Order: sequence, then structure tokens, then C-alpha cells
Amino acid sequence: MTKRVYNFYAGPATLPLPVLKKAQEELLDFHGTGMSILEISHRSKEYDAVHKKASELLRDLMGIPSEYKVLWLQGGASTQFFMAPLNLQQAGKPMEYVHTGAWAKKAIKEAKLYGEVKIVASSEDKKFTYIPKNVTFSGNAAFAHITGNETIGGVEWQQWPTVPSGVPLVCDMSSNLMDKVIDVKKFGLIYAGAQKNLGPAGVTVVIVREDLINRVTETVPTMLKYKTHVEKDSLYNTCPCFSIYLCELVLEHLKALGGVSAMEKQNRKKAQLVYDVIDHSNGFYRGVAQPDSRSLMNVTFNLATPELEAKCVEEAKKNGLIGLKGHRDVGGMRASIYNAMSLEGVEKLCAFLQEFQEQNQ
Amino acid sequence: MTKRVYNFYAGPATLPLPVLKKAQEELLDFHGTGMSILEISHRSKEYDAVHKKASELLRDLMGIPSEYKVLWLQGGASTQFFMAPLNLQQAGKPMEYVHTGAWAKKAIKEAKLYGEVKIVASSEDKKFTYIPKNVTFSGNAAFAHITGNETIGGVEWQQWPTVPSGVPLVCDMSSNLMDKVIDVKKFGLIYAGAQKNLGPAGVTVVIVREDLINRVTETVPTMLKYKTHVEKDSLYNTCPCFSIYLCELVLEHLKALGGVSAMEKQNRKKAQLVYDVIDHSNGFYRGVAQPDSRSLMNVTFNLATPELEAKCVEEAKKNGLIGLKGHRDVGGMRASIYNAMSLEGVEKLCAFLQEFQEQNQ
Repeated sequence: MTKRVYNFYAGPATLPLPVLKKAQEELLDFHGTGMSILEISHRSKEYDAVHKKASELLRDLMGIPSEYKVLWLQGGASTQFFMAPLNLQQAGKPMEYVHTGAWAKKAIKEAKLYGEVKIVASSEDKKFTYIPKNVTFSGNAAFAHITGNETIGGVEWQQWPTVPSGVPLVCDMSSNLMDKVIDVKKFGLIYAGAQKNLGPAGVTVVIVREDLINRVTETVPTMLKYKTHVEKDSLYNTCPCFSIYLCELVLEHLKALGGVSAMEKQNRKKAQLVYDVIDHSNGFYRGVAQPDSRSLMNVTFNLATPELEAKCVEEAKKNGLIGLKGHRDVGGMRASIYNAMSLEGVEKLCAFLQEFQEQNQ
Repeated sequence: MTKRVYNFYAGPATLPLPVLKKAQEELLDFHGTGMSILEISHRSKEYDAVHKKASELLRDLMGIPSEYKVLWLQGGASTQFFMAPLNLQQAGKPMEYVHTGAWAKKAIKEAKLYGEVKIVASSEDKKFTYIPKNVTFSGNAAFAHITGNETIGGVEWQQWPTVPSGVPLVCDMSSNLMDKVIDVKKFGLIYAGAQKNLGPAGVTVVIVREDLINRVTETVPTMLKYKTHVEKDSLYNTCPCFSIYLCELVLEHLKALGGVSAMEKQNRKKAQLVYDVIDHSNGFYRGVAQPDSRSLMNVTFNLATPELEAKCVEEAKKNGLIGLKGHRDVGGMRASIYNAMSLEGVEKLCAFLQEFQEQNQ
């Protein structure tokens, strides 16, 4: 029997086992073509069906209105950090950002290349352990930018901010796309690297309101215009076919499980289980994020010393619980419990943490 | 038994069967980790070994000198079309291009965004059916750019042009990387989308001479600087792990077969077989490329009418020979016979073409 562990990596992250099995099964012969999906032309009708299906499923599952376009790009959120301002900037208007941690910081850095950036709120005062409340953006902003979830601090927006009419809200949802039901209409642009909730590394999904694609100037390289990819349905050049295929399988699987609302229900339950262990540990485990900003996807916590944390990570590994080490920038521990992490996996983690506490307190 | 056909697509293209089988075998449990390579963190030691091995194998197989860096990026050659001039441009110096077809044209279009582009030679006069001879670049050029092989016209550089000392030669080798032994030292920058000779779609290899990474200005986005990726060994952000893993397997396979010189020998034999069928067909098949510019990788040819070509493509398909339709921009027929296309596959193609001629002339 194939060995499988519980994988709590922050991304690339665990994928649903039925998806991996299906990919494995048809890896040499995709749908009777006699070719692998890895070898099929991106212009073939067989691949085209996959491509279209992936977009349709995402539209269906997220309830994406018709005035929004779905794009499958490359380069990760790190590419969107500059591509979003490059496409949405407007002369004389500030770009307004909320600073919530390492990912917001990277987005802000790239936006500064294109004009005035205003930080309208920041949680730097408390080491990014919360999401700022009552954030206001000016009506004059070219766009407003937030990071939906910060994987390093483990903080997540619980309620989307209000933006003045006419100001598009841009959101990096790399680590919380489809973790709960959202109203896409609140946003002008959503982008997400796939490698957390959607699929493997190597593809980035962009959901853009159609009117925004026309802001871009002619002097922007073809590949960096959303417009190019909207007009060619993400087939201007060779797309990352296999990664999109995997996303399609994940989306199909998610639909069969009951869609995003079912995921949200399970995600809330999973997160609650881990936070409960932390909160009931009498300080043995200390949650990093403030309770009202806690992420459903990345549970960050500390133990008394780095040595004890290292011991906990090691013993977890021996128990088949992998990837619990915190991000190298902040240390500590982190359990990433994306959509594909089962309730069973979270229960095993909780049982382990309680046992570890008993033996080490 | 799994059905397999002979796949002559221009890219994404056929991959070696042993590579696909190995990927299939370890898809659920990579090297005993209990995780798929699709799920493993790009910062894990297991993935890191794959990442390093891929670069080492490429260095070894291509004989890449130590002053060159190997990068694994995203976005395809279409991204390199603007990234190369963005990184290598120099104020007041022209960027010099040879225009050999559709791919060169796209590269030229993007370079024009960054300054003066000089077309030093072009084969447009004869519909891009040849590679210009005796091309000269000026000593004042920021760089010289060529397209190693044009997949649409089916023309390939047989001898690399000479460039003045101090002028880096940039080459798009997307469709002929490792089709023959080359001297990397002749180049300043080589780039290639993987999806022909190297692996699946979704990763782009860049080989850059170290001194050239410092030309870039500070105002270029982080992700668009070669320097960023050199400094972080292509791990500045989440890399397309699975695609790089597949490349690693392809490179390992290629090494076991005898490396690039063995490929070159086989490629020359394979191409000769197809061109011989064309040349001995008494005009039933007409080669598109001039004989002294013929590609080893993409054999382009016409029949008397588009109807006869369509019939030929259809009957080939019935015989398990897939993807022989020419590019939609030029029509005709095209057999792409990359490294992973077996001699047996080419022999079957030749036998089919001869039979089709007998029955249809």
C-alpha cells in the first residue's frame, strides 16, 4: 500500500487523494488519446475541454458574475504584485494598500515602482498579529489592495473592507481562495497562486472585472496585460496545461463534496479544533494571531522555547504529521489546514498536540 | 495495456515513456515521503534535491561553463521576449535582431518597447523559408538576438552567427535546446520554454552569463530581474516544482541514452529519413524550408491542395500518427520530431507517407 502522511505545509500543500489517484491513473493515456495530458498540444480539442471546464467550475463554485473574466496565468502572486498595479494604475491617483504582513509588504514594494502608494492601515505595530479594523480608502484611489490571508502571521480578513464607489478592491487570495463563500462583486480583481487551495504550483488564477482591463497602456509588454489573456482566453501562449488540469480535477472534487459552502463549514470546524487545543492548553501553546483575526487556513502558535518547538515538530513528523515548522522569518509553529486537509488529519494533529503537552509540560 | 500513439505535436510534445512511467509510479508517494511531488513544499529538502539535480544535469549535458547560471522560470519564451531586452538593454545602443519568422517577430515586437531595434537580416522576402547567411551585427549593439529554430516555418540555424567581441548573443532555443551539441560560450543568454525537448509546459529554462545580470535597473519589478532568480537559485518565489521535476527526469533519461551527442546523431538520422521521403516523392510532398536551413525538429511540407493535406492528416491519425497538421498561420503539414520522438515513430511516419503517396498520386 502506498504510504501517505498528513501534510501541513503552507504551500505547495496537500491535494485531495482522489485527485492524485485520478491523475495517476490517466497519466499515460488521457481520455483514450494515447497521450499523456503532459504531452497534448494546448491547441488540441482534448486539452481545450479541460481548459474550459476548469474556468466553468471555478465560475460555478465561486459564483463569478458574467462581467468577470477568469484567467490562468503563470508566475505566482509574486508576478501579480507588479502586474496588478501595472494594469490598474491611473495617473495622479494613489494606490492604497493595507499592510498586514510579509505578503502585503511584497505587494507594496512592487506597486511603488508605478506611482504613489498610500498605506491606509497597518498592523506592523503588533508584529502583524491582527487585521486592522475600520479601514477607509479614499474615493480618489486608483485601487484598494488587501491580502486576504497572511500565511506567515496566520491572520485573515473576517469581513471585507468597504471601498468607495468606483474604487476597485484588489485582493491577493493565494492562501484563502474558496476557503469560504464570498461575494465576488465586492472585488475588482482577485488573484491567487494555485498551490494552496486550488492545485499544484505553477499556475495563478486571476479573476478580473472586464472594464478594468482597458486601463492598461500600450507600452506594457503583451504578456503583462490582462487584456491579452482575456482576449485569448489564457491561450495567447502555451499555458501550464498540466497544472490547469490538476486544478480542474480539484474543482470537480470540491463540487462533489458540496462546493465552497461545504468547505467553509468544514474549515470552520477544523480551525476551531486546533484553536481550542491552543486556548485550552493553559499557555503551553500560545496562538500568534489575535482571536478576531485568526486564519482558517494557517494556525500559527508558539511554545515556550525554540528548542521545545523543534522537538514538537520532530515528534509530529514521527507521527506522520509533516510540515509544522513555522515560516523561517518568524519561527514558531504553523499548521496549514487548507481545503484538502481532512477533518481526520486535523483530529490527529489535535490529539498529538495534547499528548505532546502532557509529556512536556 | 495502455494505448500509446506517435505524437508529432509541435509542443507541448511527446515525452519519453520511461519518464512518464516513473512519474506515474511515484505520483502518490515521492521517494518514501508519503506525499506527492505535487504537494511537497518548495523549501523541503526532498524538493531541493530535485531542483539542484535538474540544474546539475542540464549543466552536465550542455557543458555549461561555471560563469553561466541556470534558472527555472515561468511564463514561457513569450515572457523572455520582453524580459531579455528589459534586462540587457543599454542606453543609446541598438538591440539587433535577425527576423526569421513568427517567433522572431514576437521577440522583436516586445524589444521595441525598450529602445531602438535594428533588424540586421530577415528572410521575410521568401516567407521565412530560410535562415539568412553572413549576418553581421554592429559592435555597438546592446545585444544580438536570434531564434534558434522556427517551429512554424521549420527553419533552424545550422551555424551560429559570429558576433563582435563584447556583444552578447541571445538565443531563443525553445524548440531546439539540446537537439545538437553547442558551445554555450558563444552565447550571453539562452532561453527556452520546456515543452519541446525538455519537459512539460509550465517552466522556462534560462542560461545567463553571470556578468549580464548586473545591467538591469532598480526600477524593474523584482520578478523580472534575472538577478533576483540568480541570487535565490530560482527559489525567490514558489517555483513550478512538478514541471522542474519532470525536466529532471527527462534530463536523467537523456543522459542514460548517451547525452546530447547521441541525441544529435539520432536527430540527424530521423530528420534525414523524413526529408528523404519528401525529396524522393517527385513533388507529391514539397518541403517548405530551403534545404540548407532545414530544421532537425520541425519538418514542414505541403501537398498539392489543402484538401489533400487534410486527408493526409486524417489518415495519419487513423494510423496512430497524431498532430501532423501545420501551424494555423501557414497551413500545410508539419512533423515535429523532438528528442523524445523515437526512430521507430519516424520510420512509421515515413512508411505511412509513402503509402499515402502511392494511394493518392
